[in-house]
Amino acid sequence: QMCWFDDSLISLYFTIQIRITLRFSSPQALIPFLFLPFASALFPTSLTPHQFQNPISMRSDDGQWRCRVPVNKVAIVGGTHGNERIGVHLVTHFTENPELVTRPSFSTSVVLSNTAAVEAIGTGAGRRYVEEDLNRCFSNQRLNSEPCDAESVEMKRARELDMLLGPKHSEKPNSDFIFDLHSTTANTGVLLCYHQHDTFSAALCSFLQSRDPSVSLLLWPAGADLGLLPTVGRGGMTVEIGPMPHSTVNSTLLRRTMQLLQDSLDFIHQANTLQGLPPPPPQPPRVFSSAGSVDFPRDAEGRITGFIHPDLESKGELREGGALRDGDFVFQNLDGTPVPFDRATHVPSLSGQDSELYPVFVNEAAYYEQHKAFIVCNRVS
Amino acid sequence: QMCWFDDSLISLYFTIQIRITLRFSSPQALIPFLFLPFASALFPTSLTPHQFQNPISMRSDDGQWRCRVPVNKVAIVGGTHGNERIGVHLVTHFTENPELVTRPSFSTSVVLSNTAAVEAIGTGAGRRYVEEDLNRCFSNQRLNSEPCDAESVEMKRARELDMLLGPKHSEKPNSDFIFDLHSTTANTGVLLCYHQHDTFSAALCSFLQSRDPSVSLLLWPAGADLGLLPTVGRGGMTVEIGPMPHSTVNSTLLRRTMQLLQDSLDFIHQANTLQGLPPPPPQPPRVFSSAGSVDFPRDAEGRITGFIHPDLESKGELREGGALRDGDFVFQNLDGTPVPFDRATHVPSLSGQDSELYPVFVNEAAYYEQHKAFIVCNRVS
Repeated sequence: QMCWFDDSLISLYFTIQIRITLRFSSPQALIPFLFLPFASALFPTSLTPHQFQNPISMRSDDGQWRCRVPVNKVAIVGGTHGNERIGVHLVTHFTENPELVTRPSFSTSVVLSNTAAVEAIGTGAGRRYVEEDLNRCFSNQRLNSEPCDAESVEMKRARELDMLLGPKHSEKPNSDFIFDLHSTTANTGVLLCYHQHDTFSAALCSFLQSRDPSVSLLLWPAGADLGLLPTVGRGGMTVEIGPMPHSTVNSTLLRRTMQLLQDSLDFIHQANTLQGLPPPPPQPPRVFSSAGSVDFPRDAEGRITGFIHPDLESKGELREGGALRDGDFVFQNLDGTPVPFDRATHVPSLSGQDSELYPVFVNEAAYYEQHKAFIVCNRVS
Repeated sequence: QMCWFDDSLISLYFTIQIRITLRFSSPQALIPFLFLPFASALFPTSLTPHQFQNPISMRSDDGQWRCRVPVNKVAIVGGTHGNERIGVHLVTHFTENPELVTRPSFSTSVVLSNTAAVEAIGTGAGRRYVEEDLNRCFSNQRLNSEPCDAESVEMKRARELDMLLGPKHSEKPNSDFIFDLHSTTANTGVLLCYHQHDTFSAALCSFLQSRDPSVSLLLWPAGADLGLLPTVGRGGMTVEIGPMPHSTVNSTLLRRTMQLLQDSLDFIHQANTLQGLPPPPPQPPRVFSSAGSVDFPRDAEGRITGFIHPDLESKGELREGGALRDGDFVFQNLDGTPVPFDRATHVPSLSGQDSELYPVFVNEAAYYEQHKAFIVCNRVS
């Protein structure tokens, strides 16, 4: 038998919240604000937790992804990258207006993730990170390592967030499903990323794509010890939207993110009410998985000698018919000469493969230092 | 009588260069690379400095702006904001290919400005600044203050750059004309900013706009003790181009910046050859001056409650007929309601004025922390 809100869990939530609030004594310290009591108050008497005595398990083969119905505890996270501002502002907005993100069948917590990077100076509005990318700190290897004073501000925050939203792989994590809100300078449109074994994410994302065919789906790399924030919950996904300069907000893209969350929360509530997944859409989803990355052209000293070609820059990503073919211009050198795509040169690891390659995250600012001009994907379905 | 390259000046250049090179021991330390000896080698015998024995003075009324023909020493500066990457990469490119920026009648130096911010981590490719905005450090008040160890990395660099490119207001500054290469997240297109008393900039910019009517011209604020980098030379201008996310390069905009520099250097060489300004274009230029700024809507706690409205976001800036009228939607609240422009509310300082207002730098990332959603301009001509 499953119990939704046991008192010890609630007090754990608030202990953690108070500790974090004390640590970050800025206005944003009021975030994370947890809506458990609020959600309990809203709880209609006709729908009690005891309707879900036999949760439908979706534990995957490797035991790591097991989001299941009912989804009792949802977390909406923003500011994992401090300069991706849609999430930062939506966290504030949802904290002020919790009714927007609550539904009768689950509770919702709203969390500002990399608080230090959100506040950091140097760009006008936040940095991606202060010392290292927070969204690479949630691997088993990192979280299981011994904490030490010398570790980065991000690793310290990752341990706090793991306590708040996980712990990762625990039997009773504090989040059944996590939405991590991001944005990108690339022309991704809405791009949802999740684990291939996360059946609930797959169902939710198929539903979202059936409502809006421009929504793209991308699987996280399989078999890796992923360091992504949503991996600390039972299930979860990364919500990307672009193109938008970091440290700014585009109102249209912000409102599109809000609508996507509304549709997602409705889906979760429907699944809880049905005690199972709604029937899948008739059309199979369009899903991709990343296969490799392509660096900018560089000279002998490692300096970039060409940037994304206008043909590729303007292209919507992961679209039907959007595969990259050998000879398509991908870069333009500073002297104006175009550089055609050549699979054998640009992604030698895939030179033996003849499957179509789709570019994504083209000209994402954060990837310059990682020597990635764009990522290439295979189409899975 | 005027002497172009006296030996003491050359040795001053190289003393400074070596000092700076030692301080920044990265690959970029090879920048600033000064092309004086290179330019001397190129110098055609038919065109000697002695043709210009009577320089045409363009000293302004206030004695501060006096770029004059011949323009002997040009500087091209990039990376004043470390995340505005067109300038950063063009500095490298021109250092490797000096023939692109030299002309027979003048020498050109190429300088990477905020070296620390260009290298700073946290975004993927540079920060605008490390401690403060370098492009506010070149005021008389700041430069004339006593140097101290506690001052910012930017103020220290400003003093070095003032020595290298100025000194500001000296009789013999090391730059007759400075191009400072910037970019912006706003939809400015090419936007050239200069001092109203800088007759040479005005002539150059009128010429550039006559070649490409989409080029916009904006005067720096009059009468202020300007802290902008180009103010350390005899004359100079800020080259803005957008829209482009910071920490990325858009190849089309990079190549447009290159072309603009080519046209500008040709103009300078022509003026030197003519020993005066070429005749002005028949059409008077379209010129604006900034009049004020408008903040985002905020709640009682100072949190932003609405972002740029899609109607304003997409608009080309400083275009013919692009004036903002009361009632035009300028913001969109997070709940979707539009906020119409109201001069009396949004720019109370201009409420008595009935001249047309043109928005510029709409949704520039760097201005969020300055509480500027956009700048409003008056049309001057």
